[in-house]
Amino acid sequence: MKIAILGGDGFVGWPTSLHLSDQGHEIHIIDNLSRRWIDTELGVQSLTPMDSIQERTRIWHQETGKRIHFHLIDLAKDYDVLKNWLAEHKPDAIVHFAEQRAAPYSMKSDRHKNYTVNNNVSATHNLLNAMVEIGLDAHLVHLGTMGVYGYSTVGAAIPEGYLPVGIETMTGDTVNQEILYPANPGSIYHMTKCLDQLLFQFYAKNDQLRITDLHQGIVWGTHTEQTRRHEQLINRFDYDGDYGTVLNRFLIQSAIGYPLTVHGTGGQTRAFIHIQDSVRCIELALADAPAAGDRVKIFNQVTETHRVRDLAELVAKLTGGEIVNLPNPRKEAAENDLIVDREQFIKLGLKPITLAEGLLEEVIEVAKKYAYRVDRSRVPASSAWTKEIAQTVDTDPEKKRLKAVS
Amino acid sequence: MKIAILGGDGFVGWPTSLHLSDQGHEIHIIDNLSRRWIDTELGVQSLTPMDSIQERTRIWHQETGKRIHFHLIDLAKDYDVLKNWLAEHKPDAIVHFAEQRAAPYSMKSDRHKNYTVNNNVSATHNLLNAMVEIGLDAHLVHLGTMGVYGYSTVGAAIPEGYLPVGIETMTGDTVNQEILYPANPGSIYHMTKCLDQLLFQFYAKNDQLRITDLHQGIVWGTHTEQTRRHEQLINRFDYDGDYGTVLNRFLIQSAIGYPLTVHGTGGQTRAFIHIQDSVRCIELALADAPAAGDRVKIFNQVTETHRVRDLAELVAKLTGGEIVNLPNPRKEAAENDLIVDREQFIKLGLKPITLAEGLLEEVIEVAKKYAYRVDRSRVPASSAWTKEIAQTVDTDPEKKRLKAVS
Ligand SMILES: NC(=O)c1ccc[n+]([C@@H]2O[C@H](COP(=O)([O-])OP(=O)(O)OC[C@H]3O[C@@H](n4cnc5c(N)ncnc54)[C@H](O)[C@@H]3O)[C@@H](O)[C@H]2O)c1
Ligand SMILES: NC(=O)c1ccc[n+]([C@@H]2O[C@H](COP(=O)([O-])OP(=O)(O)OC[C@H]3O[C@@H](n4cnc5c(N)ncnc54)[C@H](O)[C@@H]3O)[C@@H](O)[C@H]2O)c1
Repeated sequence: MKIAILGGDGFVGWPTSLHLSDQGHEIHIIDNLSRRWIDTELGVQSLTPMDSIQERTRIWHQETGKRIHFHLIDLAKDYDVLKNWLAEHKPDAIVHFAEQRAAPYSMKSDRHKNYTVNNNVSATHNLLNAMVEIGLDAHLVHLGTMGVYGYSTVGAAIPEGYLPVGIETMTGDTVNQEILYPANPGSIYHMTKCLDQLLFQFYAKNDQLRITDLHQGIVWGTHTEQTRRHEQLINRFDYDGDYGTVLNRFLIQSAIGYPLTVHGTGGQTRAFIHIQDSVRCIELALADAPAAGDRVKIFNQVTETHRVRDLAELVAKLTGGEIVNLPNPRKEAAENDLIVDREQFIKLGLKPITLAEGLLEEVIEVAKKYAYRVDRSRVPASSAWTKEIAQTVDTDPEKKRLKAVS
Repeated sequence: MKIAILGGDGFVGWPTSLHLSDQGHEIHIIDNLSRRWIDTELGVQSLTPMDSIQERTRIWHQETGKRIHFHLIDLAKDYDVLKNWLAEHKPDAIVHFAEQRAAPYSMKSDRHKNYTVNNNVSATHNLLNAMVEIGLDAHLVHLGTMGVYGYSTVGAAIPEGYLPVGIETMTGDTVNQEILYPANPGSIYHMTKCLDQLLFQFYAKNDQLRITDLHQGIVWGTHTEQTRRHEQLINRFDYDGDYGTVLNRFLIQSAIGYPLTVHGTGGQTRAFIHIQDSVRCIELALADAPAAGDRVKIFNQVTETHRVRDLAELVAKLTGGEIVNLPNPRKEAAENDLIVDREQFIKLGLKPITLAEGLLEEVIEVAKKYAYRVDRSRVPASSAWTKEIAQTVDTDPEKKRLKAVS
């Protein structure tokens, strides 16, 4: 297949590109490299030394003889360029990772809120619009998030996208229907994924686009089979307070002797998936395209759920790190349960990698190897969800210790 | 109260501004005049000769001694200007009309789809974002549409925003919850109003903004008590295939001896409200603000429902016009029922104006008076919902007759 990977320079997009290239597909990465620019804005860098996309694809070719093509296009801003590109290349499938994906970054300031909404809505809508305009019948696979469900605690397992409900009619009967799971996003970022869902629903209905939406949990780990092949194929590893995600952050914190920062009681239950499973799921989703006229196919791309404090304890036990509870910069329930349906990928053949399987050690090794590159001042999570929270949150456990001393 | 009327130069915004000014409120219209520009783009003009906003407000002052202030701001593009304006003027309430509001226009081409999404999402999000940023605790009243419900035909009356559903839990019990009515928009325009809903839900939850969303039916009529006071206070009257709405279109069609164009069987049931009731509803909604922390308050701003073909027959009977059935440029069910809950406004004191009440004659008079200004070539509805429909739709009944002759 000819596959366009939008956002293929990112944390999940890059190993996905390698994985699908390895399987013989013709891969075209489209990316505006905004994520690299945001690193510059925030004054952080990937823990792992990450080469330019041009250099990475050169190494891949050198190692495997396979070409991954790169095209610098801003999906949100270059509608005509995107449309012409699609019309010229006519990919069979499109994997869409190309959005601003950090909840804390999306809450940083009014400017960041606007950027996230405009970038994500325009990227997704431009893509759908262009596909219809040129009559491209490609299978579109989009990366959504478990966060669209808002960790609702009605006491039912979170289904894969659609919720069966009973609605009382005027004659007093109950009609059973499946509806798109009621959205309850917890940040501007998560909200944009809810907006995406409505865009997908509309374009699937009005224009028969074939769309799969993957509601992904938090991705952990860094290596996949392909990124291990050469030092310069290494994947990015975000550890900062905005882009670093909880498990990877605990691992780097322990590697540099920084306290494991748990927000609130750590009673939040989150859904997880290893990066290797993430790329495998995308492969499986690509092979299982909906038909024209079908509703959007939704998968929960999740392998296990854990409470944040349990993860912190697990990492502390493995590494001897110290746990510190900090005020939560997010506006969310202090404690929540989370049970997630995820049968569809299992049926398609996914054999989930779990935290128990030794891959934690691999991440600890990566973290230790590159610990010298860490800027400790970028570790705390400082983006607060509201101005009130911002005033109460003292997010730096190191400062706290200094204060206690002085 | 000091009230900002966003989109106050438009069809509903202008009479609302007059109505609220008449009641003694301090009125500030914010508008980018994009609707006037779209008239220019489409090569159409309001049936009624409509003065500039500056001239209209001058006349209002001359007639009543009251000032309506006008500020040229693009909500979608001038975030900082908007923010500074709000910070300086601190309105008590904001009425938000400022969106691209024609479904056919939103489906015209890929450019129009993008424009509608970007304009509407950015306008609404910029506003919410700015309110939070400057800590403005104003009551926000937004004009939504009945179209967010997608005229769902589950056999239940359409509730005012929230649907009670039963959800089965893992223990087999049924939990009853109220959810935002599942969105099922029928056009890009309607979809943007569904996106708005999610934005409102998020900002009400995360930032305690006080928001009322009015799901309005199709507005008919042209005069209100205030627009009648002076020839130059006259409201706009759209009759073209994109902006003209069904009942007003039938009335102008009959006034110029043009066939009454019914799409498909005319079996679509739509919700209606007279312009005088529309402005009255906004007054009532303003006086009934939710408290900080409340969920978004949603009203159905509708007074009656009718099948399109019944309306055509009513107008034909009144005026002797001829009905012609044309292929439907929209993608929608040929026939639908529609029963709408609308108790909240009645409870607040609305006494609905109905079609039966003689106001149809008033519109016919306006239509006849200005019939000389009509461009017949702009009457057909030519924006098709998909490229397939575009090929089958011959939307011009006059051409058809010419063809039959030649
Ligand atoms: N990483 C996770 O834990 C996680 C969890 C759930 C869902 N997701 C989703 O998976 C996708 C990929 O996540 P990631 O961690 O790889 O993110 P990332 O930020 O590392 O990668 C996103 C890529 O998209 C590019 N991009 C952003 N906006 C663009 C635009 N307008 N035009 C072109 N390119 C653009 C960026 O430059 C970047 O390379 C995202 O959509 C994200 O929301 C990620
Ligand atoms: N007219 C109807 O039948 C009807 C029915 C249901 C809902 N509504 C809703 O009511 C509202 C008003 O409808 P209307 O018929 O008066 O529409 P309109 O097009 O006549 O008025 C909208 C006004 O908003 C302005 N505007 C648009 N984008 C703007 C921006 N980015 N910045 C500043 N100003 C902007 C336009 O210039 C225009 O003056 C709309 O939101 C519409 O969706 C209307």
